[in-house]
Amino acid sequence: MFKKVCIIGCGLIGSSIARGIKKNKLATKVVSSNRSNSTNKKVIRLKIVNEASSDTKKIVKGSDLIIIASPLSSYKNIILKIKSSLKNGAILTDVGSVKKNVISLIEKNIPKNVSWISSHPIAGTEESGPESGFSELFKNRWCILTPSKKSKSKDVKLLEKFWQKLGSKVDVMNAKQHDYILSTTSHMPHLIAYNIVNTTLKIKKKKDRNIVKYSAGGLRDFTRIAASNPIMWRDIFIQNRENTSKMIDKFIENLKDLKKAIKGKNEKKLEKIFTETKKIRKEIIKAGQDIGKPDFGRK
Amino acid sequence: MFKKVCIIGCGLIGSSIARGIKKNKLATKVVSSNRSNSTNKKVIRLKIVNEASSDTKKIVKGSDLIIIASPLSSYKNIILKIKSSLKNGAILTDVGSVKKNVISLIEKNIPKNVSWISSHPIAGTEESGPESGFSELFKNRWCILTPSKKSKSKDVKLLEKFWQKLGSKVDVMNAKQHDYILSTTSHMPHLIAYNIVNTTLKIKKKKDRNIVKYSAGGLRDFTRIAASNPIMWRDIFIQNRENTSKMIDKFIENLKDLKKAIKGKNEKKLEKIFTETKKIRKEIIKAGQDIGKPDFGRK
Repeated sequence: MFKKVCIIGCGLIGSSIARGIKKNKLATKVVSSNRSNSTNKKVIRLKIVNEASSDTKKIVKGSDLIIIASPLSSYKNIILKIKSSLKNGAILTDVGSVKKNVISLIEKNIPKNVSWISSHPIAGTEESGPESGFSELFKNRWCILTPSKKSKSKDVKLLEKFWQKLGSKVDVMNAKQHDYILSTTSHMPHLIAYNIVNTTLKIKKKKDRNIVKYSAGGLRDFTRIAASNPIMWRDIFIQNRENTSKMIDKFIENLKDLKKAIKGKNEKKLEKIFTETKKIRKEIIKAGQDIGKPDFGRK
Repeated sequence: MFKKVCIIGCGLIGSSIARGIKKNKLATKVVSSNRSNSTNKKVIRLKIVNEASSDTKKIVKGSDLIIIASPLSSYKNIILKIKSSLKNGAILTDVGSVKKNVISLIEKNIPKNVSWISSHPIAGTEESGPESGFSELFKNRWCILTPSKKSKSKDVKLLEKFWQKLGSKVDVMNAKQHDYILSTTSHMPHLIAYNIVNTTLKIKKKKDRNIVKYSAGGLRDFTRIAASNPIMWRDIFIQNRENTSKMIDKFIENLKDLKKAIKGKNEKKLEKIFTETKKIRKEIIKAGQDIGKPDFGRK
């Protein structure tokens, strides 16, 4: 499919892509650039890529597909480093969770003959680093493409095929739509998980209660979400701050409404809300985005 | 251990206890009372209990251990029905998630020679009903006992042993402590999950976005929690409304603080919070309340 693919940032997502490329034979050669030399050594030792170097400008040369898989705040540095090394006709993509700002940032900085097509594979675990990646990560997951003005339609088709070969289902939409939808389905849930764990930690510090010991009653599942990569999420919230702020306001408004119902012992209202939220679970299972089996395996 | 055990309400928790009793041979006979006749038939057909009937007053007679495993709002009716049928020297317990109010309610209503010792096994899944129970549900989970004034210490020891035989680790504390701790580790996380799913549903209705389709980015995990039994949770929030209200206020305060940091692009502050919340995850895994493996199995 490609001769040379370069992955900039070989963490959970980057290394899963590299593993998927190798497994499905989607490129003759996969190389990677990471800031830390120990990561570069590790991805070679683990045979995740063929070559790795901290010299991004050099290693990117001759690549047909370049994938930025590092935190959003690193994009500016990266694009300034690689812009003069990009091959004629290459496809440049990323895997970031927010689109609007970065699309124009990169658009401004790359040569005309490079197709810049942003990607967002909606997949991940609470782990980070190259060891945690696996080739099946994208299987049955949605990947959203948000092409820029600087992308040829034949390249959009090729990139679409690439994600499909990794197991993804692909949708195409614009950056504004993407950022709005993801703020509801992903960014807000993560922010709320961080906030509940943070609130609990403050109580723990003050009163030294046995929070950890009794965490199986619900908190445990939030700590899993709130254990995601701090830098990555810091960048996501800041980049999508307008949507996130609006969602926070809506969330608080609804929470105050719930508080009122609880204090007023409004059984009917509470039951109605909790019955409706139960229904969407079935839709999610039907859509293949989760399985119906409860979390038995976890102890 | 016991001759006759009666479980009032054979749902997820009740049927798991019945299964655990049979598996570990903790009683000669297990009976159950359920309001609906179809449930009574089902628990007989599935061989979960030896006898079942909607006539609670009658079936409870002669039981050495009576376990109320129905929603908190049903306690009053139940205790009024069974009070005159309780055997001399019997132990009465429940499995409810809030203690303060129900302990005094029952204390007022039972004869002197019955040991009323409230239990709270911190275990469960997002499923409901007798089919969803399993004998291993309590394994390695904490069970908190909150004895009332009407409980003999030898009976507290016996009940402790009972939960241990079902696989639980047992702690004893007072009702006030219990209700406070559980509001942080269980009630608040559930309320927040309900609220995020409810907020998202409202957006979905208004804008018809593809919320379900892209739910793997975080929302999915909240829908699992928000799919818990609506009646049970309605009762929990109302019964523990004082603690819950205070927690809501703290949560909103912290969320506003996060919003301010996001809008002000305060990278340092966000990174600091998200790094701290990551740490507690390790403590929970170390405490055996979850496993380190990410949620691979879910698709």
